[in-house]
Amino acid sequence: MRRTAIASAVATCLIGAVAFASAALAQDDALSSWNDGAAKQAIVDFVSAVTEEGGADYVAPADRIATFDNDGTLWVEQPMYVQLAFAFDEVKRMAPDHPEWKDTEPFKSLLAGDMKAVAASGKKGLAQIIGVSHAGMSNAEFTETATNWIKTAKNPKTGRLNTDDIYEPMLELIDYLKANEFDVFIVSGGGIEFMRPWTEATYGIPPQNVVGSSVKMTYKVTDDGPVLMRDAEIAFVDDGPGKPVGIQSHIGKRPIASFGNSDGDYQMLEWATTGPGRTLGMIVHHDDAIREFAYDRDSQFGHLDKAMDDAAKQGWVLISMKDDWAKIFPDE
Amino acid sequence: MRRTAIASAVATCLIGAVAFASAALAQDDALSSWNDGAAKQAIVDFVSAVTEEGGADYVAPADRIATFDNDGTLWVEQPMYVQLAFAFDEVKRMAPDHPEWKDTEPFKSLLAGDMKAVAASGKKGLAQIIGVSHAGMSNAEFTETATNWIKTAKNPKTGRLNTDDIYEPMLELIDYLKANEFDVFIVSGGGIEFMRPWTEATYGIPPQNVVGSSVKMTYKVTDDGPVLMRDAEIAFVDDGPGKPVGIQSHIGKRPIASFGNSDGDYQMLEWATTGPGRTLGMIVHHDDAIREFAYDRDSQFGHLDKAMDDAAKQGWVLISMKDDWAKIFPDE
Repeated sequence: MRRTAIASAVATCLIGAVAFASAALAQDDALSSWNDGAAKQAIVDFVSAVTEEGGADYVAPADRIATFDNDGTLWVEQPMYVQLAFAFDEVKRMAPDHPEWKDTEPFKSLLAGDMKAVAASGKKGLAQIIGVSHAGMSNAEFTETATNWIKTAKNPKTGRLNTDDIYEPMLELIDYLKANEFDVFIVSGGGIEFMRPWTEATYGIPPQNVVGSSVKMTYKVTDDGPVLMRDAEIAFVDDGPGKPVGIQSHIGKRPIASFGNSDGDYQMLEWATTGPGRTLGMIVHHDDAIREFAYDRDSQFGHLDKAMDDAAKQGWVLISMKDDWAKIFPDE
Repeated sequence: MRRTAIASAVATCLIGAVAFASAALAQDDALSSWNDGAAKQAIVDFVSAVTEEGGADYVAPADRIATFDNDGTLWVEQPMYVQLAFAFDEVKRMAPDHPEWKDTEPFKSLLAGDMKAVAASGKKGLAQIIGVSHAGMSNAEFTETATNWIKTAKNPKTGRLNTDDIYEPMLELIDYLKANEFDVFIVSGGGIEFMRPWTEATYGIPPQNVVGSSVKMTYKVTDDGPVLMRDAEIAFVDDGPGKPVGIQSHIGKRPIASFGNSDGDYQMLEWATTGPGRTLGMIVHHDDAIREFAYDRDSQFGHLDKAMDDAAKQGWVLISMKDDWAKIFPDE
């Protein structure tokens, strides 16, 4: 049996060796959706430097932590955050059980399709919409709802499923980093439990590598067994200065590479790129009105202003979707 | 170059194949510090069942999540929690900068060595001691302090370094689960940042797989760069009903195996073992007064009462340190 085990292992390894050699060759082409230019070069130079054993910038695999924002960095965030569309759809789905919403703002306007009035309800109105759609149920129920919704939810402008509205060059970047023994995390202002049901299938990032905003949860034993109830109380906001806190809380290590697209990623980029040793900070700049959307300083979603102004000073590299990406979407 | 890469990979694999064959053989002996009996059998049966491809109880590697309590489950928690000893030592170390403590309780009694008076100060006094030793500094400073302290800190009763006061059978169990493609996490009532500096070297569990209690942190940019400040405010208590919440927050998956030793692990065990499919819940019972300590219902640290009463009903397996462990400590 021992001999069989060895023979079997050798056979597996020979197959693996061929795969390995192919992978090494494929490596050159790992970023094939990236045009040659400063952005692609910055990635390749950084990864080469930190993975070169004996090199001055070498970083052990255990410390190769990379963090990615989600909205606008990995998938489309226009004309509004996907999670907001989910919240609106949830209110509509739940409306039959809430006849009182017909006379209560902001639900009344939302159900009537008056989005201007919904917007006018401001943060308070939005908090109510998020509240009823994200709390008051068990976490398992919420996961099931989000899972079902994401299966068919489409972007109203692109017409694609939201989970197809993702950036091919960033998928390649995630894979390239993983192939170079990076541990890759999503660190998003979005809801942690809203993302977890689909990040593994969509980006290859498992639930335990997702960091996000959360509501307070309470453990409760019911007749059907224990559940985690989602309370209508914010536990953590993983945005802006919250991102380094979320990173430390979940990962316990400082990233050496970080990727974002808005001012909400400023502190995450700053935290990653002011650490010791060689680091990489990059900002996806939405400047392609033809293939995607063009927006920055004036946008409500993915507002990019100060981080763009400070990019040069901070050593962050801007990624021009227009110039740096040969292809934007997987199905393009 | 391609040929060289293949040759090199094959060579690496051949070495790997021998290692693999040895590991397969060693597997039989992976739990060598465990005496044959119901506890060891429960572990082996469970792992065999969930890893048998095509079997009724098969669980994909991605869902093989195991969670371990720390104090009393992986290392000694008598005569007091190690982290409490750390807090006491920190107060003594900081005392020269705090002359006012000479006249303020509970510091006055602690500095005078009057532990009865410290105990009498109750939760409020303890909170003050934890407060000054765990908050008011940057997280990097706290990590450095904890790292330095743990290097020399010894258990006053056993005389061992705390990091040697660990249970060999549990280390074997962690390795056995990892060899069977489990993702292994610590889920402790202890402070997450107190544990992270040493869990990888001590148990082979990296910082991102440590879940624990925490204080609120605030991101702050100083003249020396950004820091995470530790505020004197509890952010999360990872104990009792908090453990399933901490598990969901950090891992996003429900464990299929869980190991604890006290009533503080009740809900974690319940959460793990009432999930779908085959599960395993085990309780380390400290019943060996000669080689370790004997305590359960009447102990302040590692209080085990209700979880022991309900073990049979819940299907949890008790581990008798006296009968099930041939060896308790690595250096025994």
